[in-house]
Amino acid sequence: MNEHMNSVELKKAFRLINHGPTVLLSARHGGIDNVMAVAWCCGLDIDPPKLTLVVDKVAQTRSLIEASGVFVVQVPTVAQLALTRDVGTRTLYDEPDKLQKSGVSIFEVPGQDLPFVEGRSAWLACRLVSEPHTQDTYDLFIAEVIAAWADDRVFRDGHWHFETAGPEWRSLHHVAGGHFYAIGEAL
Amino acid sequence: MNEHMNSVELKKAFRLINHGPTVLLSARHGGIDNVMAVAWCCGLDIDPPKLTLVVDKVAQTRSLIEASGVFVVQVPTVAQLALTRDVGTRTLYDEPDKLQKSGVSIFEVPGQDLPFVEGRSAWLACRLVSEPHTQDTYDLFIAEVIAAWADDRVFRDGHWHFETAGPEWRSLHHVAGGHFYAIGEAL
Repeated sequence: MNEHMNSVELKKAFRLINHGPTVLLSARHGGIDNVMAVAWCCGLDIDPPKLTLVVDKVAQTRSLIEASGVFVVQVPTVAQLALTRDVGTRTLYDEPDKLQKSGVSIFEVPGQDLPFVEGRSAWLACRLVSEPHTQDTYDLFIAEVIAAWADDRVFRDGHWHFETAGPEWRSLHHVAGGHFYAIGEAL
Repeated sequence: MNEHMNSVELKKAFRLINHGPTVLLSARHGGIDNVMAVAWCCGLDIDPPKLTLVVDKVAQTRSLIEASGVFVVQVPTVAQLALTRDVGTRTLYDEPDKLQKSGVSIFEVPGQDLPFVEGRSAWLACRLVSEPHTQDTYDLFIAEVIAAWADDRVFRDGHWHFETAGPEWRSLHHVAGGHFYAIGEAL
């Protein structure tokens, strides 16, 4: 944790992902940490906050979240574009040192046995809501957000401040094939 | 339909919503058309293309899609910001002339008994996949995309062209309380 990582009220946590960014999903089980990029992550409820995410059966991170029932969704920034592409294409099955190779630094948050990825703009600690049919049929996971934090240089007082935070803080929005747009201007 | 509305290959249809825009949901049943804004719409599968969307029980459009089993998801642009805010806050229950008041123009597409909203950048005709438990418990709907179109001034050859299309064509990304960001620069 760094001095800029501040708690976000749970009833405002949905704002961290409401604008549709690509996210990083991280999980831990049995001494293994993994991180992957997920383009399909979406709000589901505001209070208590819930979200959905789609995680393919081939993803090693999926077995971790199914085993532990908890995970972190974090919002990467333009400054982490290469890392985001990298963890979205490498697999821990083939490369046990995937995280080091991709330049991912993990940090701990007191009270949470979860791998948090350094340098993001926001973090949502989530608990899986078990829905076996939805998970098996559609690769669709439902989770409740149990705690949230954001970097106060880009999100504070319940609002994103992309306009004033510098272009490297903008969120990433994946279209296809590693091609991303940054979030743009406030309207 | 206008001369710029072109079919999009189904296997590329997910690209129309992959970057996380707020969408407009429109549906028709029993002679009634309605349109609402939905911030929580997300890809679910590529081929065949599927998506999820969250529609509250109070939304009149929900009863239309449950009755007809079909609907349109369309991607509004910066030029339609006021309309998008408007259909997201007005309700047909209180204002039977909601669509006229909000400035919504409906057009027909041959072979589709669905209300298409004029002036969007993309349209996805969808068929509901019945999942009563998911719908009732989470207000979460799963649908298969059965046809897709885009305006070739901003999406063509399977790619968005926000960079060259002019700022009024950018997609809208809702944060909270009617506050939106436009999509930004290609990375």
